[in-house]
Amino acid sequence: MQELLPAEQAIFNKFKKSIEDAYHRHGFISIETPIIDRTEILFAKAGGDTEKQIYKVIKTEESAEDVNQALRFDHTVPLARYVVEHENDLAFPLHATQIGRNFRGERAQKGRFREFYQCDVDIVGRSVLPIAYDAKAIATVYEALKTFDLPEMKVRISNRKILSGFVELLGLSDKTAAISSIIDHAEKTPPEETTNALRDLGISKDNVVKITTFINTSGTPDEIESSLRSILDNIDSLTEGLSELHTVYELLEAEGLGQNAIIDFMIVRGLDYYTGTVFEVFLPQYRAIGAIAGGGRYDNLASDFVDQKFPGVGGSIGLTRLFYVLRNQGLLKIEGEKPIDITVIPISDNERTFAIQLANKLRAEGRSVDVVLTDKKLGDKLTYAAKIAKNAIIIGENEVNSGNIEVKDLTTGVTSMLEI
Amino acid sequence: MQELLPAEQAIFNKFKKSIEDAYHRHGFISIETPIIDRTEILFAKAGGDTEKQIYKVIKTEESAEDVNQALRFDHTVPLARYVVEHENDLAFPLHATQIGRNFRGERAQKGRFREFYQCDVDIVGRSVLPIAYDAKAIATVYEALKTFDLPEMKVRISNRKILSGFVELLGLSDKTAAISSIIDHAEKTPPEETTNALRDLGISKDNVVKITTFINTSGTPDEIESSLRSILDNIDSLTEGLSELHTVYELLEAEGLGQNAIIDFMIVRGLDYYTGTVFEVFLPQYRAIGAIAGGGRYDNLASDFVDQKFPGVGGSIGLTRLFYVLRNQGLLKIEGEKPIDITVIPISDNERTFAIQLANKLRAEGRSVDVVLTDKKLGDKLTYAAKIAKNAIIIGENEVNSGNIEVKDLTTGVTSMLEI
Repeated sequence: MQELLPAEQAIFNKFKKSIEDAYHRHGFISIETPIIDRTEILFAKAGGDTEKQIYKVIKTEESAEDVNQALRFDHTVPLARYVVEHENDLAFPLHATQIGRNFRGERAQKGRFREFYQCDVDIVGRSVLPIAYDAKAIATVYEALKTFDLPEMKVRISNRKILSGFVELLGLSDKTAAISSIIDHAEKTPPEETTNALRDLGISKDNVVKITTFINTSGTPDEIESSLRSILDNIDSLTEGLSELHTVYELLEAEGLGQNAIIDFMIVRGLDYYTGTVFEVFLPQYRAIGAIAGGGRYDNLASDFVDQKFPGVGGSIGLTRLFYVLRNQGLLKIEGEKPIDITVIPISDNERTFAIQLANKLRAEGRSVDVVLTDKKLGDKLTYAAKIAKNAIIIGENEVNSGNIEVKDLTTGVTSMLEI
Repeated sequence: MQELLPAEQAIFNKFKKSIEDAYHRHGFISIETPIIDRTEILFAKAGGDTEKQIYKVIKTEESAEDVNQALRFDHTVPLARYVVEHENDLAFPLHATQIGRNFRGERAQKGRFREFYQCDVDIVGRSVLPIAYDAKAIATVYEALKTFDLPEMKVRISNRKILSGFVELLGLSDKTAAISSIIDHAEKTPPEETTNALRDLGISKDNVVKITTFINTSGTPDEIESSLRSILDNIDSLTEGLSELHTVYELLEAEGLGQNAIIDFMIVRGLDYYTGTVFEVFLPQYRAIGAIAGGGRYDNLASDFVDQKFPGVGGSIGLTRLFYVLRNQGLLKIEGEKPIDITVIPISDNERTFAIQLANKLRAEGRSVDVVLTDKKLGDKLTYAAKIAKNAIIIGENEVNSGNIEVKDLTTGVTSMLEI
C-alpha cells in the first residue's frame, strides 16, 4: 500500500472528504459493504485480468481448497449484492456512494497499489434506469474532481454497444471480448503491437485497419456520426449506442462540461460487466498518468443473484493512484501546516493538573490541544511543540497562581494573552 | 459484517466522525496502515485466542503454504511497524489515531463481527514514555465516548504488573499466561467454573481462593492499597504496578473522570502485548454487553522489529460492536431525517436542462440536491422525493419561462418561493 506520513495523510484525508462532500451535494448517500465477501459473488462478474487479481482469504486452520471468501476488488459488485438483499428497504433509483479500500493482487509497479481507495457513486434502478442517469454519474465524478486544484481535465466517453455493433458488422462477434481487451490496452501499447495482437486473433489485414481506424475516432457526437454515417442503420446496437451517446453528451453540456467531454472509441474499460456507456477522466497535460477516474453502465450486474433487473451506472475516482500521481508530478503542496492548535507545556509535575484542566477548557471550544507530559527540559518540550502545533502555552508556578496565561505563536514568535 | 441500511449508515458515520473529532481535539493525528500486512509482523504479537483468528490472504494461483500475508486484527501491531519504519520523520511522543476496519475470524455470535471498526488512539514514545500518558490515552477514549448520549460509563483499570507480582508471590509465575486467560474470561463465566479452571492448572485450593479474592478486588487506589498492604513491598512489580495505578488514577481525577474510574483487578485484556496499565469501559446499567472500549500500555511492541524501545499506550473504541449494542438496547434513535435537502423534479424532458442547471446553482451554495430523471408520472416522482429529501422543487414550462420557482417542504407540505 501507499503508506503516508502524518502531513501527507492529512492532505489525503482532506481530498477524501472533499470528494465525499461533493457526492453528497449531488444527492448520493453513503453505504458500506463488507471487505470480505463470498467468492461466488466476487468472481461472478470480475472477468478478464481482474479475476486473476482477486485475493482469497483463509482462516488459520483452513486449507486453500476450502476457500469461499475473498477480498472485494471493487465497490460495484458488492453493491449489486447489497441492492438485491435490501431491495425492499431502498428508494429507487438508489443513489449510493461508497468510499473505501479495494484489493487487487497486481504485480507491483509504480503508482499501482494492492490496496487502494476508490470513491464511487452508483445509481441503480429497479427494472429500468433511463440513460440520462449515465450523464448524472459522469457529471458527479467530474464535479468531485473539480474541487481539487487539478490541471485541465477531459472526460472521454464511449458506449460498448457501438464497439460490439461495429465488431458484428465485421463478422467478428465471436471475438468481441478479445478485441475489447486489446483496445483496452491500446493506449499504452505501440500501434504496431496492437495491430499484431489483432492479426494474431486471425483477423484479416483489412479488418484490422478498420478496427484501428475505429478506435482512433474521437470528437463530438456530430463529428462521430458523420464519420460513421456510411455504416449506420445496418446494426441495431450501433444505432442504439450512438443515440445513447448523443443523450449523454447533451446532458453533460447542460451540466456545464460540454467542452471537456469528448467521444473516444478507444475507451472500453477493463471490467467485463459494462454494457453501454463507458468513460474515463484524463489530465491531457499528463496523459502518461492514465485515467484518474472512470466508470460506466452495467445493466446485468445483479443477474447472477436474482431474476429481476437492477440496471446501474457508476463512476469511481481512484484516489490512492490520483494522490500518488499528483505528488509525483509535483502538483501537490504538502503544506507545512501544523495539525494541532495549541500545545500546553507544564514546566513540572506540579502544574500538570492545571495544564490538563486548561486543555480541556480549550477543547470545549473546539480547539485541538496537546498536553506535554514528558520529563524533559523546557527547551526540548518547545522543540517538540514546534513540530506539531501552531501555538504553545507554558504553565509554571506564576501562571497557576495568577491565572494569567500567554499564548506563543510558534511561527511568528509573537506572544499574546489567552482569552477563554 | 454488520451491513447497514442508508439511514443507519448515516448515524454510524456520524458516530465515527464524532469520535474522530474528539481524538483530534485531544491532539491526535490520523495515520493509516495497510489492511494486508506480512504474517511475521501480525503473528509476532497476537498471542492467545487472537492468533487463531487471524485471516490469511492468498492470491489465485498460490497454495496455502506460500502464505506470508494476512489481514490486520488490530491497529496497534501495524502501528509498531509504522513507527519503526518512519521513526526519523515522526515527532515523539507520537500521538496517532487510526479509525478503520480490523478482521478476526471469530465464530459467528451475536454482536461479534468478523469485520469491525476500531477507533484507536495511541501514544508512542522513543525509548521512554512517562506513565502520565496512560491517563491521557484513557481520558481521550472516555471523552470521545462522552460525545454520544450514552448511559453512565465506568472505566475499570488495572495494571498487569500487579497481577504478575501477585502470581509471583504465590510461586505461580510459570502459570501467569494461563491464569491471565482465565481471569480475562472470569466476568462472563460462573464463579465455580473459574475456580475449576484454576484448579485444573494444578493450583492449590488455598491459592485459588487467594486468586479469586484478588480478582474481585476493586475500588479507589487507597482502598486497594489497604487491602493489599500486608503483601506490599515483598514483590517489586507489585509495588511498581500499584504506584503506576496511583498516578493514572490521580491524573484521571485531574481530567474530571475520577468518579467514573475504578481500580478493578478482573481487568487483564486478552492480547498478549500489554505490559502495564490495562483498562476497559463499561456501561454499568448494561453490564452484559461487556466492554465498549479498552486498551493499555505496551512497552515491547516494536521489540520484534528493532532493538530500540518504543513504549506505547493506547485505547480503542469498538465502534461496530458499540453501534450494534446501542441499537439492540433501543438506545439509538434512527431518526427519520432525510439525507437530501432538495429533490428537483422536471415534469418532462423539456425541463431537464433547466432543472440540472438549477441543481448545480443550489449545490454551489453547499446544499445536497438530487434531480429526478426517470420517465415516471409526477405523482411517482414525488413519492420518490418524499422518501429521500426534505424539500421538492417541480419544474414545468411555467417555471422555465417565468423563473419563479417554488420549494415544497415535504414534511409540512408548506410551499415558499425559492431564493437563490
